[in-house]
Amino acid sequence: MTGVETAGAAVSVDEAVAAARAAFRTGATRAERSRWLEALAASLEADRDELVALAARETHLAETRLTGEVARTAAQLRFFGAVVREGAYLEAVVESPDPGSIPPRPDLRRMLRPLGPVAVYTASNFPFAFSVLGNDTASALAAGCPVVVKAHPGHPELSRRTAALAAQALPPGWLTLVEGMEAGRELVQHSGVAAAGFTGSERGGRALFDLAAGRPQPIPFYGELGSINPVVVTASAAAERAEAIGAGLVASFTRDAGQYCTKPGLVFVPRGGGIEDAARAALASAPASRQLTEGMTAAFRTGLGRYSDSPGAEVVTEPIAESDASAPSLVLVDADEFLREPAVYLAECFGPVSVLVRYSDPELETLLDALEPSLTGTIHRGSAEDVTALAGRLGGRVGRLLFDGWPTGVAIGWAQHHGGSWPATTASVHTSVGATAIRRWLTPIAYQDAPADVLPAELRDGNPLGIPRRDA
Amino acid sequence: MTGVETAGAAVSVDEAVAAARAAFRTGATRAERSRWLEALAASLEADRDELVALAARETHLAETRLTGEVARTAAQLRFFGAVVREGAYLEAVVESPDPGSIPPRPDLRRMLRPLGPVAVYTASNFPFAFSVLGNDTASALAAGCPVVVKAHPGHPELSRRTAALAAQALPPGWLTLVEGMEAGRELVQHSGVAAAGFTGSERGGRALFDLAAGRPQPIPFYGELGSINPVVVTASAAAERAEAIGAGLVASFTRDAGQYCTKPGLVFVPRGGGIEDAARAALASAPASRQLTEGMTAAFRTGLGRYSDSPGAEVVTEPIAESDASAPSLVLVDADEFLREPAVYLAECFGPVSVLVRYSDPELETLLDALEPSLTGTIHRGSAEDVTALAGRLGGRVGRLLFDGWPTGVAIGWAQHHGGSWPATTASVHTSVGATAIRRWLTPIAYQDAPADVLPAELRDGNPLGIPRRDA
Repeated sequence: MTGVETAGAAVSVDEAVAAARAAFRTGATRAERSRWLEALAASLEADRDELVALAARETHLAETRLTGEVARTAAQLRFFGAVVREGAYLEAVVESPDPGSIPPRPDLRRMLRPLGPVAVYTASNFPFAFSVLGNDTASALAAGCPVVVKAHPGHPELSRRTAALAAQALPPGWLTLVEGMEAGRELVQHSGVAAAGFTGSERGGRALFDLAAGRPQPIPFYGELGSINPVVVTASAAAERAEAIGAGLVASFTRDAGQYCTKPGLVFVPRGGGIEDAARAALASAPASRQLTEGMTAAFRTGLGRYSDSPGAEVVTEPIAESDASAPSLVLVDADEFLREPAVYLAECFGPVSVLVRYSDPELETLLDALEPSLTGTIHRGSAEDVTALAGRLGGRVGRLLFDGWPTGVAIGWAQHHGGSWPATTASVHTSVGATAIRRWLTPIAYQDAPADVLPAELRDGNPLGIPRRDA
Repeated sequence: MTGVETAGAAVSVDEAVAAARAAFRTGATRAERSRWLEALAASLEADRDELVALAARETHLAETRLTGEVARTAAQLRFFGAVVREGAYLEAVVESPDPGSIPPRPDLRRMLRPLGPVAVYTASNFPFAFSVLGNDTASALAAGCPVVVKAHPGHPELSRRTAALAAQALPPGWLTLVEGMEAGRELVQHSGVAAAGFTGSERGGRALFDLAAGRPQPIPFYGELGSINPVVVTASAAAERAEAIGAGLVASFTRDAGQYCTKPGLVFVPRGGGIEDAARAALASAPASRQLTEGMTAAFRTGLGRYSDSPGAEVVTEPIAESDASAPSLVLVDADEFLREPAVYLAECFGPVSVLVRYSDPELETLLDALEPSLTGTIHRGSAEDVTALAGRLGGRVGRLLFDGWPTGVAIGWAQHHGGSWPATTASVHTSVGATAIRRWLTPIAYQDAPADVLPAELRDGNPLGIPRRDA
């Protein structure tokens, strides 16, 4: 939701939603949707070079990164194709009657079904993986929900090109693109829209969340917002491998100009443990990159200025040649200074910067208590060090807790979770990556004493489709 | 949220939430929580007669009904005890690393965990089953979430007595009662509350939903609001058994003074098919009962007045002796009149009344299109009649679709769903009855490359607790 209006939205929100409603009424089988997802993946791959070139021009992201992102996006589409084919996501339950239970139980059969047309608000920083054919779209189509995609103004041509490609692989109405901030506001308030997904800033997400909640008939709004992604390096870990940790950290937070919702933005390092020196050394050879938009570059510089203005914080910025790039930076601060002004250091600064907070063991508990919920939390521990208590404390505030690694790079799978309580997301019980992301677009129905011909095949006696099912 | 402040709330919202937070920090194992739920069920049964007498005095519900409700409430508590013991609700997934996937996949293990302290807003019409130890509390305790219960002003003494009984079966902080409308508003906005459950009116639910969504950090608000619960009687069904259907309908909508969220409030009957005459006949012997509160009695009379004021509607009310009771009533209206002023007939009227809409087959589609989402929908069909199209059309608007029965009486089980899109509930993807009601109080966590000692036993290699789990 940052900024600029784009011209030339050929389709109005009313038209897009009407088309989605018509598609929803027609519906599609699981087999059909699974085939569509496969076809969409293949289309992306077939047109990869052209799409990557277009994306590079609009986003300033490197072609190698974008090529990888196309592969990831195709993998996501195929993964949701597999999820919908398998059918466990339907959570089918068939429960036989029990006249003796209190109250008496009739024949009850439950499964999930699609909610209706879904609005998808795309991200600036993943022009493929969280954009027109990204995770929200893939999971919604898998669920059986047509989507109306609000294009991100950071890559309008790529959005149009991707939508055109999707139109060739999908029947009418299953994916329609709309453009412009006003269309975005209208879309989430449209009576024909049943739910919305969003990836972006806390400010933009909050504005749309408020519109969704303020409707005469509120709808679920699944927003993945910002995250500071705290990292704790224990004294043992620092003693064992300070250099590798410092280098790994800098590689993670400068990757693609630090423009990841999982960027490690806050790192608790043992005072005098050598991480700081290692990170400073790694910073010297970290690449400077241009950010996605000029607005983001300006916001990054303002953010660095806030750190500089804070007494007690040292900002280390590598001098760079390119005037339009963002310089990789480290902010160094002591625990007591962090605790004096936590809001300064807990605010997400989108770009290649991370805050190192120097701590001594007795301070760590207080530092962790100051944290807000995040998408991820990371612990670097010594080999065989017992970090159970630390894991409990940090794990309670994050959606994904990882060890001895870096949070950037979110794997696709059945066990993935990409979420967390506000401000990480607007909907603490849902994920936007991984198999269960499909559940955001589904709602249960229970059939009571239904004749067999009314039941979906997934709920019929004998489980004719052989889906994973609870027969109770 | 109707009405009257009650005096004597001994515990402030701050104190109650602080106690719940302390309990949450301490935590409890699945085995412990399962035992608590068993103990709570046994306590209710042990004190049944005293509790029923108290409830009858405060709610005017019949003792036989209340005795049955205690049995139901104990069954719910035990059911959630079984759900938490079994462990499938944790949705545990263990996924092995795959360096070859795109992007490479680390060791990922996911399960659900409790969200935090939960606010429970209790219902007037189920002083046990949706009150202090009702479904919301049972599912929250099962999930591992301490509850702060906002007592319903319709049965304050019973609420206090039940909370005192719960205090004997639970460790400190796991269930605390607060009272009064102001406490209710404060509770849903308290920073220490992680989610809220509500059963009640659309007006009260909307007010609390708006407070929950308007917080600096919004929380999930699961409100089960009103419902009109449409019924369609086909011409074949009417031809086969008009008398039984008419009698069954009247029994369902007059049961316990019609004070059910699943009361069949709107019935489409074939014009001239005999249902109307059968219902009129049954009405003559239907019992008149006092409603839960004087406010509800007054609102019921106002509601009947709205039907009477509507030209073209006939209101049939049995004369009754008791001046403080609500008279069982039928409203009879033609399809075209219904379509002229649908809002009059789609508004829930809480009490012993149902609206019969006379239709001819070609009108039915238009009538169904006018419906808002409901908790339930019912079809009475002829034996072997194909109602697939009708089921599709009605089923798309309701959470539970039932056949040849009546929606009052909501069975407990793995396959139950009690929910639906707004205005049936505030949260279309969740249920307030049945095993999956526990999910409202849970949030996922994913562990990445975690050492074994950090992992919950449910996620360790070899599945030592033997819970249902996906090992991918």
